[in-house]
Amino acid sequence: MKIGRLSVIGLGPGDPSQLTAEASAVLAEANAVYGYGPYLARVSPRRGQQRLASNNREEGSRARAALQHAETGLHVALVSGGDPGVFAMAAAVCEEIERGPEIWRSVDVAIIPGITAMLAVAARAGAPLGHDFCAISLSDNLKPWTSIERRLAAAAFGGFVIAIYNPVSRARPHQLRAAFGILRRTLPGTTPVLFGRAIGRCEESLVVSTLSSADAISADMATLVIVGSEHTRVIERPERPPLVYTPRAFPGGMR
Amino acid sequence: MKIGRLSVIGLGPGDPSQLTAEASAVLAEANAVYGYGPYLARVSPRRGQQRLASNNREEGSRARAALQHAETGLHVALVSGGDPGVFAMAAAVCEEIERGPEIWRSVDVAIIPGITAMLAVAARAGAPLGHDFCAISLSDNLKPWTSIERRLAAAAFGGFVIAIYNPVSRARPHQLRAAFGILRRTLPGTTPVLFGRAIGRCEESLVVSTLSSADAISADMATLVIVGSEHTRVIERPERPPLVYTPRAFPGGMR
Repeated sequence: MKIGRLSVIGLGPGDPSQLTAEASAVLAEANAVYGYGPYLARVSPRRGQQRLASNNREEGSRARAALQHAETGLHVALVSGGDPGVFAMAAAVCEEIERGPEIWRSVDVAIIPGITAMLAVAARAGAPLGHDFCAISLSDNLKPWTSIERRLAAAAFGGFVIAIYNPVSRARPHQLRAAFGILRRTLPGTTPVLFGRAIGRCEESLVVSTLSSADAISADMATLVIVGSEHTRVIERPERPPLVYTPRAFPGGMR
Repeated sequence: MKIGRLSVIGLGPGDPSQLTAEASAVLAEANAVYGYGPYLARVSPRRGQQRLASNNREEGSRARAALQHAETGLHVALVSGGDPGVFAMAAAVCEEIERGPEIWRSVDVAIIPGITAMLAVAARAGAPLGHDFCAISLSDNLKPWTSIERRLAAAAFGGFVIAIYNPVSRARPHQLRAAFGILRRTLPGTTPVLFGRAIGRCEESLVVSTLSSADAISADMATLVIVGSEHTRVIERPERPPLVYTPRAFPGGMR
Protein backbone atom coordinates (compact mmCIF):
# COMPACT_ATOMS: atom_id res chain seq x y z
CA MET A 1 0.00 0.00 0.00
CA LYS A 2 1.26 3.43 -0.92
CA ILE A 3 1.70 5.78 2.04
CA GLY A 4 1.00 9.42 1.39
CA ARG A 5 2.71 12.66 2.09
CA LEU A 6 1.86 15.58 4.37
CA SER A 7 3.47 18.93 3.56
CA VAL A 8 3.10 21.57 6.26
CA ILE A 9 3.64 24.82 4.42
CA GLY A 10 4.55 28.28 5.68
CA LEU A 11 2.72 30.99 3.74
CA GLY A 12 4.76 33.84 5.25
CA PRO A 13 3.28 37.07 6.61
CA GLY A 14 0.63 37.62 3.97
CA ASP A 15 1.77 38.93 0.62
CA PRO A 16 2.11 36.12 -1.95
CA SER A 17 5.52 37.53 -2.94
CA GLN A 18 6.83 36.47 0.47
CA LEU A 19 6.24 32.78 -0.23
CA THR A 20 9.33 30.78 -1.12
CA ALA A 21 9.50 29.13 -4.54
CA GLU A 22 9.54 25.77 -2.72
CA ALA A 23 6.28 26.54 -0.89
CA SER A 24 4.57 27.57 -4.13
CA ALA A 25 5.76 24.44 -5.94
CA VAL A 26 4.65 22.07 -3.19
CA LEU A 27 1.26 23.80 -2.96
CA ALA A 28 0.79 23.34 -6.69
CA GLU A 29 1.43 19.58 -6.45
CA ALA A 30 -0.88 18.75 -3.55
CA ASN A 31 -4.10 16.77 -4.02
CA ALA A 32 -5.78 18.54 -1.11
CA VAL A 33 -5.13 21.68 0.94
CA TYR A 34 -6.16 22.04 4.59
CA GLY A 35 -6.01 25.26 6.57
CA TYR A 36 -7.59 27.92 8.73
CA GLY A 37 -10.03 29.76 6.44
CA PRO A 38 -8.17 33.09 6.02
CA TYR A 39 -4.88 31.29 5.28
CA LEU A 40 -6.53 28.94 2.81
CA ALA A 41 -8.04 32.00 1.10
CA ARG A 42 -4.50 33.12 0.21
CA VAL A 43 -3.94 30.00 -1.89
CA SER A 44 -5.14 30.18 -5.50
CA PRO A 45 -7.66 27.42 -6.23
CA ARG A 46 -6.47 24.73 -8.66
CA ARG A 47 -8.55 22.36 -10.73
CA GLY A 48 -8.86 18.97 -9.09
CA GLN A 49 -7.40 20.14 -5.77
CA GLN A 50 -9.66 19.72 -2.74
CA ARG A 51 -9.83 22.62 -0.25
CA LEU A 52 -10.77 22.05 3.38
CA ALA A 53 -11.11 25.10 5.60
CA SER A 54 -11.41 24.96 9.39
CA ASN A 55 -11.53 27.31 12.37
CA ASN A 56 -8.51 28.83 14.07
CA ARG A 57 -8.99 27.02 17.38
CA GLU A 58 -9.03 23.56 15.79
CA GLU A 59 -5.31 22.90 15.20
CA GLY A 60 -5.45 19.38 16.62
CA SER A 61 -8.47 18.19 14.67
CA ARG A 62 -7.16 19.85 11.49
CA ALA A 63 -3.82 18.06 11.87
CA ARG A 64 -5.61 14.73 12.44
CA ALA A 65 -7.84 15.19 9.42
CA ALA A 66 -4.82 16.00 7.23
CA LEU A 67 -2.90 12.94 8.53
CA GLN A 68 -5.90 10.66 7.90
CA HIS A 69 -6.17 12.04 4.40
CA ALA A 70 -2.42 11.55 3.73
CA GLU A 71 -2.71 7.99 5.06
CA THR A 72 -4.81 7.15 1.97
CA GLY A 73 -1.75 7.64 -0.24
CA LEU A 74 -2.38 11.20 -1.41
CA HIS A 75 -0.24 14.31 -1.11
CA VAL A 76 -1.93 16.58 1.41
CA ALA A 77 -0.87 20.16 2.13
CA LEU A 78 -1.58 21.91 5.42
CA VAL A 79 -1.05 25.66 5.24
CA SER A 80 0.11 27.83 8.12
CA GLY A 81 0.66 31.58 8.39
CA GLY A 82 4.28 32.68 8.77
CA ASP A 83 6.55 29.72 9.47
CA PRO A 84 4.83 26.44 10.42
CA GLY A 85 7.44 25.77 13.10
CA VAL A 86 6.93 29.00 15.07
CA PHE A 87 3.75 28.92 17.21
CA ALA A 88 1.97 27.23 14.32
CA MET A 89 0.92 23.92 12.75
CA ALA A 90 4.15 21.87 12.68
CA ALA A 91 4.09 21.19 16.44
CA ALA A 92 0.38 20.34 16.28
CA VAL A 93 1.11 17.75 13.56
CA CYS A 94 3.95 16.22 15.61
CA GLU A 95 1.71 16.02 18.69
CA GLU A 96 -0.93 14.14 16.72
CA ILE A 97 1.62 11.78 15.16
CA GLU A 98 2.99 10.92 18.60
CA ARG A 99 -0.41 10.11 20.09
CA GLY A 100 -2.07 8.79 16.90
CA PRO A 101 -2.10 5.40 15.16
CA GLU A 102 1.23 3.74 14.27
CA ILE A 103 0.60 4.23 10.55
CA TRP A 104 0.97 8.02 10.90
CA ARG A 105 4.67 7.44 11.67
CA SER A 106 5.02 6.15 8.11
CA VAL A 107 3.54 9.26 6.47
CA ASP A 108 6.18 11.29 4.60
CA VAL A 109 5.98 14.53 6.60
CA ALA A 110 7.74 17.58 5.12
CA ILE A 111 7.81 20.94 6.86
CA ILE A 112 8.28 23.80 4.36
CA PRO A 113 9.62 26.88 6.17
CA GLY A 114 8.26 30.38 5.69
CA ILE A 115 8.94 33.98 6.77
CA THR A 116 7.71 34.18 10.35
CA ALA A 117 6.12 37.42 11.60
CA MET A 118 9.08 38.62 13.68
CA LEU A 119 11.37 38.52 10.63
CA ALA A 120 8.86 40.50 8.56
CA VAL A 121 8.35 43.14 11.27
CA ALA A 122 12.08 43.37 11.97
CA ALA A 123 12.80 43.85 8.26
CA ARG A 124 10.30 46.69 8.03
CA ALA A 125 11.82 48.42 11.07
CA GLY A 126 15.54 47.99 10.33
CA ALA A 127 17.34 45.29 12.32
CA PRO A 128 15.93 45.08 15.87
CA LEU A 129 16.77 41.34 15.97
CA GLY A 130 20.37 42.05 14.95
CA HIS A 131 21.68 40.60 18.19
CA ASP A 132 20.58 37.74 20.49
CA PHE A 133 16.80 37.57 20.76
CA CYS A 134 13.91 35.37 21.83
CA ALA A 135 10.34 34.67 20.80
CA ILE A 136 7.59 34.30 23.40
CA SER A 137 3.90 33.63 22.88
CA LEU A 138 1.65 35.35 25.43
CA SER A 139 -1.15 32.91 24.80
CA ASP A 140 -1.89 31.07 28.03
CA ASN A 141 -4.34 28.65 26.46
CA LEU A 142 -1.53 26.12 26.40
CA LYS A 143 0.80 27.11 29.22
CA PRO A 144 0.42 28.68 32.66
CA TRP A 145 0.81 32.46 32.93
CA THR A 146 3.44 32.01 35.67
CA SER A 147 5.74 30.36 33.13
CA ILE A 148 5.23 33.30 30.75
CA GLU A 149 6.15 35.73 33.55
CA ARG A 150 9.25 33.71 34.34
CA ARG A 151 10.33 33.70 30.70
CA LEU A 152 9.81 37.43 30.26
CA ALA A 153 11.89 38.11 33.36
CA ALA A 154 14.65 35.70 32.25
CA ALA A 155 14.72 37.25 28.76
CA ALA A 156 15.02 40.79 30.11
CA PHE A 157 17.67 39.73 32.64
CA GLY A 158 19.64 37.96 29.90
CA GLY A 159 19.61 41.03 27.65
CA PHE A 160 17.62 39.43 24.82
CA VAL A 161 15.52 41.43 22.39
CA ILE A 162 12.02 39.97 22.79
CA ALA A 163 9.55 39.20 20.00
CA ILE A 164 6.07 38.77 21.46
CA TYR A 165 3.65 36.59 19.49
CA ASN A 166 -0.09 36.47 20.26
CA PRO A 167 0.19 39.59 22.44
CA VAL A 168 -3.56 39.88 23.05
CA SER A 169 -6.82 38.14 22.26
CA ARG A 170 -10.44 38.84 23.01
CA ALA A 171 -10.25 36.46 25.94
CA ARG A 172 -7.10 38.04 27.43
CA PRO A 173 -6.75 41.76 26.71
CA HIS A 174 -4.70 42.50 29.86
CA GLN A 175 -1.69 40.24 29.41
CA LEU A 176 0.39 42.52 27.21
CA ARG A 177 0.02 45.27 29.81
CA ALA A 178 1.19 42.82 32.47
CA ALA A 179 4.12 41.80 30.24
CA PHE A 180 5.22 45.43 29.79
CA GLY A 181 5.01 45.81 33.58
CA ILE A 182 7.37 42.86 34.12
CA LEU A 183 9.84 44.15 31.52
CA ARG A 184 9.82 47.68 33.03
CA ARG A 185 11.29 46.24 36.23
CA THR A 186 14.52 45.39 34.37
CA LEU A 187 14.74 47.44 31.17
CA PRO A 188 15.15 51.22 30.85
CA GLY A 189 12.03 53.21 29.94
CA THR A 190 13.78 54.40 26.77
CA THR A 191 13.96 50.82 25.38
CA PRO A 192 12.40 50.88 21.89
CA VAL A 193 9.15 48.96 21.44
CA LEU A 194 7.70 48.13 18.01
CA PHE A 195 4.11 47.30 17.17
CA GLY A 196 3.98 45.68 13.74
CA ARG A 197 0.47 45.07 12.51
CA ALA A 198 -0.45 43.00 9.44
CA ILE A 199 3.06 43.51 8.06
CA GLY A 200 3.26 42.26 4.48
CA ARG A 201 -0.43 42.98 3.86
CA CYS A 202 -1.94 46.12 2.34
CA GLU A 203 -3.26 47.42 5.67
CA GLU A 204 0.13 47.10 7.40
CA SER A 205 1.29 49.54 10.06
CA LEU A 206 4.41 49.92 12.17
CA VAL A 207 4.46 52.01 15.34
CA VAL A 208 7.73 52.80 17.14
CA SER A 209 7.36 53.58 20.84
CA THR A 210 9.36 53.20 24.06
CA LEU A 211 8.84 50.87 26.98
CA SER A 212 7.79 53.72 29.28
CA SER A 213 5.13 54.99 26.89
CA ALA A 214 4.11 51.76 25.11
CA ASP A 215 0.40 51.18 25.51
CA ALA A 216 -0.89 47.64 25.25
CA ILE A 217 -3.96 49.03 23.53
CA SER A 218 -1.80 49.56 20.41
CA ALA A 219 -1.80 45.77 19.85
CA ASP A 220 -4.51 43.53 18.49
CA MET A 221 -4.59 39.90 17.38
CA ALA A 222 -2.77 40.73 14.13
CA THR A 223 0.10 42.50 15.92
CA LEU A 224 3.62 41.29 16.61
CA VAL A 225 5.43 43.26 19.31
CA ILE A 226 9.21 43.58 19.53
CA VAL A 227 10.75 44.93 22.75
CA GLY A 228 14.38 45.94 22.30
CA SER A 229 17.28 45.38 24.64
CA GLU A 230 19.11 48.17 26.43
CA HIS A 231 21.40 48.38 23.37
CA THR A 232 18.65 48.77 20.73
CA ARG A 233 18.88 52.11 18.93
CA VAL A 234 16.64 54.38 16.86
CA ILE A 235 18.07 56.35 13.91
CA GLU A 236 15.91 59.34 13.03
CA ARG A 237 15.82 60.16 9.31
CA PRO A 238 14.61 63.44 7.81
CA GLU A 239 12.17 62.17 5.19
CA ARG A 240 11.77 58.55 6.12
CA PRO A 241 10.52 56.49 9.05
CA PRO A 242 13.16 55.84 11.74
CA LEU A 243 15.40 52.78 11.56
CA VAL A 244 15.39 50.64 14.70
CA TYR A 245 18.30 48.26 15.18
CA THR A 246 20.32 46.34 17.72
CA PRO A 247 24.07 46.65 17.07
CA ARG A 248 26.12 43.51 16.56
CA ALA A 249 28.78 44.78 18.95
CA PHE A 250 28.48 45.76 22.59
CA PRO A 251 28.98 49.50 23.19
CA GLY A 252 32.58 50.22 23.95
CA GLY A 253 33.59 47.86 21.20
CA MET A 254 34.80 44.29 21.31
CA ARG A 255 36.15 44.43 17.75
CA MET B 1 19.48 64.86 -7.27
CA LYS B 2 18.03 61.38 -7.27
CA ILE B 3 18.80 59.36 -4.16
CA GLY B 4 19.25 55.66 -4.65
CA ARG B 5 18.03 52.53 -3.03
CA LEU B 6 19.75 49.83 -0.99
CA SER B 7 18.01 46.46 -0.77
CA VAL B 8 19.45 44.09 1.82
CA ILE B 9 18.32 40.68 0.66
CA GLY B 10 18.02 37.36 2.52
CA LEU B 11 19.03 34.45 0.30
CA GLY B 12 17.78 31.81 2.73
CA PRO B 13 19.71 28.70 3.73
CA GLY B 14 21.16 27.84 0.34
CA ASP B 15 18.85 26.23 -2.15
CA PRO B 16 17.49 28.76 -4.67
CA SER B 17 13.98 27.34 -4.12
CA GLN B 18 14.07 28.76 -0.59
CA LEU B 19 14.27 32.35 -1.83
CA THR B 20 11.04 34.31 -1.64
CA ALA B 21 9.54 35.62 -4.87
CA GLU B 22 10.13 39.14 -3.51
CA ALA B 23 13.87 38.50 -3.02
CA SER B 24 14.21 37.11 -6.56
CA ALA B 25 12.34 40.08 -8.06
CA VAL B 26 14.39 42.68 -6.20
CA LEU B 27 17.64 40.92 -7.12
CA ALA B 28 16.63 41.01 -10.78
CA GLU B 29 16.04 44.78 -10.67
CA ALA B 30 19.29 45.84 -8.99
CA ASN B 31 22.03 47.70 -10.85
CA ALA B 32 24.74 46.20 -8.65
CA VAL B 33 24.99 43.29 -6.21
CA TYR B 34 27.36 43.26 -3.22
CA GLY B 35 28.06 40.27 -1.03
CA TYR B 36 30.38 37.81 0.60
CA GLY B 37 31.80 35.69 -2.26
CA PRO B 38 29.99 32.37 -1.60
CA TYR B 39 26.63 34.15 -1.19
CA LEU B 40 27.15 36.21 -4.33
CA ALA B 41 27.95 32.97 -6.17
CA ARG B 42 24.36 31.84 -5.51
CA VAL B 43 22.97 34.76 -7.53
CA SER B 44 22.68 34.21 -11.29
CA PRO B 45 24.67 36.85 -13.19
CA ARG B 46 22.59 39.29 -15.23
CA ARG B 47 23.65 41.40 -18.16
CA GLY B 48 24.52 44.95 -17.10
CA GLN B 49 24.46 44.13 -13.39
CA GLN B 50 27.70 44.79 -11.51
CA ARG B 51 28.87 42.14 -9.02
CA LEU B 52 31.13 43.05 -6.10
CA ALA B 53 32.37 40.23 -3.89
CA SER B 54 34.10 40.73 -0.56
CA ASN B 55 35.41 38.68 2.36
CA ASN B 56 33.29 37.40 5.23
CA ARG B 57 34.98 39.53 7.87
CA GLU B 58 34.33 42.81 6.09
CA GLU B 59 30.66 43.49 6.93
CA GLY B 60 31.27 47.13 7.82
CA SER B 61 33.28 48.06 4.74
CA ARG B 62 30.90 46.11 2.49
CA ALA B 63 27.93 48.00 3.95
CA ARG B 64 29.72 51.35 3.48
CA ALA B 65 30.62 50.53 -0.14
CA ALA B 66 27.01 49.57 -0.89
CA LEU B 67 25.67 52.78 0.74
CA GLN B 68 28.14 54.93 -1.21
CA HIS B 69 27.08 53.21 -4.39
CA ALA B 70 23.36 53.70 -3.62
CA GLU B 71 24.06 57.37 -2.85
CA THR B 72 24.79 57.86 -6.57
CA GLY B 73 21.13 57.22 -7.39
CA LEU B 74 21.34 53.55 -8.34
CA HIS B 75 19.54 50.52 -6.94
CA VAL B 76 22.12 48.47 -5.06
CA ALA B 77 21.49 45.00 -3.63
CA LEU B 78 23.45 43.58 -0.72
CA VAL B 79 22.97 39.84 -0.31
CA SER B 80 23.05 37.98 2.99
CA GLY B 81 22.72 34.28 3.82
CA GLY B 82 19.55 33.29 5.67
CA ASP B 83 17.67 36.36 6.90
CA PRO B 84 19.56 39.67 6.79
CA GLY B 85 18.17 40.67 10.20
CA VAL B 86 19.46 37.64 12.11
CA PHE B 87 23.22 37.85 12.84
CA ALA B 88 23.72 39.23 9.33
CA MET B 89 24.01 42.34 7.16
CA ALA B 90 20.97 44.44 8.14
CA ALA B 91 22.44 45.50 11.50
CA ALA B 92 25.80 46.26 9.84
CA VAL B 93 24.01 48.56 7.38
CA CYS B 94 22.16 50.35 10.19
CA GLU B 95 25.40 50.81 12.14
CA GLU B 96 27.05 52.45 9.12
CA ILE B 97 24.04 54.68 8.44
CA GLU B 98 24.07 55.89 12.05
CA ARG B 99 27.77 56.80 12.02
CA GLY B 100 28.04 57.75 8.34
CA PRO B 101 27.33 60.95 6.39
CA GLU B 102 23.89 62.57 6.70
CA ILE B 103 23.03 61.70 3.08
CA TRP B 104 22.92 57.99 3.92
CA ARG B 105 19.79 58.70 5.99
CA SER B 106 18.08 59.62 2.73
CA VAL B 107 18.87 56.35 0.96
CA ASP B 108 15.76 54.20 0.48
CA VAL B 109 16.77 51.18 2.56
CA ALA B 110 14.65 48.03 2.17
CA ILE B 111 15.32 44.85 4.12
CA ILE B 112 13.98 41.78 2.30
CA PRO B 113 13.50 38.92 4.78
CA GLY B 114 14.63 35.35 4.15
CA ILE B 115 14.49 31.91 5.76
CA THR B 116 17.03 32.02 8.59
CA ALA B 117 19.05 28.89 9.44
CA MET B 118 17.15 27.97 12.60
CA LEU B 119 13.84 27.81 10.68
CA ALA B 120 15.40 25.58 8.01
CA VAL B 121 16.97 23.22 10.55
CA ALA B 122 13.80 23.13 12.66
CA ALA B 123 11.71 22.31 9.58
CA ARG B 124 13.98 19.40 8.69
CA ALA B 125 13.79 18.03 12.24
CA GLY B 126 10.05 18.45 12.94
CA ALA B 127 9.12 21.37 15.20
CA PRO B 128 11.78 21.89 17.89
CA LEU B 129 10.97 25.64 17.95
CA GLY B 130 7.27 24.91 18.45
CA HIS B 131 7.29 26.68 21.81
CA ASP B 132 9.14 29.74 23.22
CA PHE B 133 12.72 29.86 21.96
CA CYS B 134 15.76 32.10 21.63
CA ALA B 135 18.65 32.62 19.22
CA ILE B 136 22.17 33.20 20.52
CA SER B 137 25.37 33.73 18.56
CA LEU B 138 28.44 32.23 20.19
CA SER B 139 30.74 34.57 18.29
CA ASP B 140 32.61 36.69 20.79
CA ASN B 141 34.22 38.90 18.16
CA LEU B 142 31.57 41.46 18.95
CA LYS B 143 30.53 40.81 22.54
CA PRO B 144 32.24 39.57 25.70
CA TRP B 145 32.06 35.84 26.46
CA THR B 146 30.68 36.60 29.95
CA SER B 147 27.54 38.05 28.35
CA ILE B 148 27.15 34.88 26.26
CA GLU B 149 27.44 32.75 29.42
CA ARG B 150 24.85 34.90 31.14
CA ARG B 151 22.43 34.56 28.23
CA LEU B 152 22.82 30.80 27.98
CA ALA B 153 22.12 30.46 31.70
CA ALA B 154 19.11 32.81 31.50
CA ALA B 155 17.72 30.93 28.49
CA ALA B 156 18.03 27.54 30.19
CA PHE B 157 16.53 28.90 33.42
CA GLY B 158 13.64 30.43 31.49
CA GLY B 159 12.85 27.15 29.71
CA PHE B 160 13.56 28.43 26.21
CA VAL B 161 14.60 26.16 23.36
CA ILE B 162 17.97 27.59 22.23
CA ALA B 163 19.15 28.02 18.64
CA ILE B 164 22.93 28.51 18.60
CA TYR B 165 24.35 30.46 15.64
CA ASN B 166 28.09 30.57 14.89
CA PRO B 167 28.74 27.68 17.30
CA VAL B 168 32.43 27.39 16.44
CA SER B 169 35.08 28.98 14.29
CA ARG B 170 38.74 28.30 13.63
CA ALA B 171 39.63 30.96 16.19
CA ARG B 172 37.33 29.58 18.92
CA PRO B 173 36.81 25.82 18.74
CA HIS B 174 36.16 25.43 22.49
CA GLN B 175 33.16 27.68 23.03
CA LEU B 176 30.44 25.25 22.04
CA ARG B 177 31.86 22.75 24.55
CA ALA B 178 31.74 25.47 27.21
CA ALA B 179 28.16 26.34 26.19
CA PHE B 180 27.04 22.71 26.56
CA GLY B 181 28.69 22.70 29.98
CA ILE B 182 26.67 25.73 31.10
CA LEU B 183 23.42 24.24 29.81
CA ARG B 184 24.08 20.87 31.53
CA ARG B 185 23.94 22.66 34.88
CA THR B 186 20.22 23.39 34.37
CA LEU B 187 18.83 21.04 31.71
CA PRO B 188 18.39 17.25 31.95
CA GLY B 189 20.96 15.12 30.09
CA THR B 190 18.14 13.67 27.99
CA THR B 191 17.38 17.09 26.42
CA PRO B 192 17.47 16.66 22.62
CA VAL B 193 20.27 18.46 20.76
CA LEU B 194 20.26 18.92 16.98
CA PHE B 195 23.23 19.59 14.75
CA GLY B 196 21.98 20.86 11.39
CA ARG B 197 24.75 21.28 8.84
CA ALA B 198 24.37 23.01 5.47
CA ILE B 199 20.60 22.43 5.60
CA GLY B 200 19.01 23.35 2.27
CA ARG B 201 22.20 22.48 0.37
CA CYS B 202 23.04 19.18 -1.31
CA GLU B 203 25.58 18.21 1.36
CA GLU B 204 23.12 18.74 4.22
CA SER B 205 23.13 16.60 7.36
CA LEU B 206 21.07 16.50 10.53
CA VAL B 207 22.29 14.72 13.67
CA VAL B 208 19.98 14.17 16.66
CA SER B 209 21.77 13.77 19.99
CA THR B 210 21.16 14.49 23.67
CA LEU B 211 22.72 17.09 25.93
CA SER B 212 24.63 14.44 27.91
CA SER B 213 26.19 12.90 24.81
CA ALA B 214 26.37 15.93 22.47
CA ASP B 215 29.94 16.47 21.35
CA ALA B 216 30.97 19.95 20.26
CA ILE B 217 33.16 18.33 17.63
CA SER B 218 29.97 17.53 15.66
CA ALA B 219 29.68 21.26 14.78
CA ASP B 220 31.62 23.29 12.26
CA MET B 221 31.18 26.79 10.86
CA ALA B 222 28.27 25.67 8.65
CA THR B 223 26.35 24.15 11.58
CA LEU B 224 23.35 25.50 13.45
CA VAL B 225 22.76 23.84 16.82
CA ILE B 226 19.37 23.61 18.51
CA VAL B 227 19.21 22.62 22.19
CA GLY B 228 15.70 21.64 23.27
CA SER B 229 13.93 22.49 26.51
CA GLU B 230 12.98 19.92 29.12
CA HIS B 231 9.71 19.46 27.21
CA THR B 232 11.22 18.76 23.77
CA ARG B 233 10.38 15.25 22.54
CA VAL B 234 11.69 12.76 19.99
CA ILE B 235 9.28 10.54 18.04
CA GLU B 236 10.98 7.43 16.69
CA ARG B 237 9.66 6.24 13.33
CA PRO B 238 10.25 2.80 11.82
CA GLU B 239 11.47 3.76 8.35
CA ARG B 240 12.12 7.46 8.68
CA PRO B 241 14.35 9.76 10.69
CA PRO B 242 12.94 10.72 14.11
CA LEU B 243 10.75 13.81 14.50
CA VAL B 244 11.94 16.26 17.16
CA TYR B 245 9.39 18.71 18.48
CA THR B 246 8.47 20.92 21.40
CA PRO B 247 4.77 20.62 22.27
CA ARG B 248 2.61 23.73 22.30
CA ALA B 249 1.11 22.75 25.63
CA PHE B 250 2.80 22.11 28.96
CA PRO B 251 2.65 18.48 30.07
CA GLY B 252 -0.37 17.92 32.24
CA GLY B 253 -2.40 20.01 29.87
CA MET B 254 -3.55 23.61 30.10
CA ARG B 255 -6.19 23.16 27.41
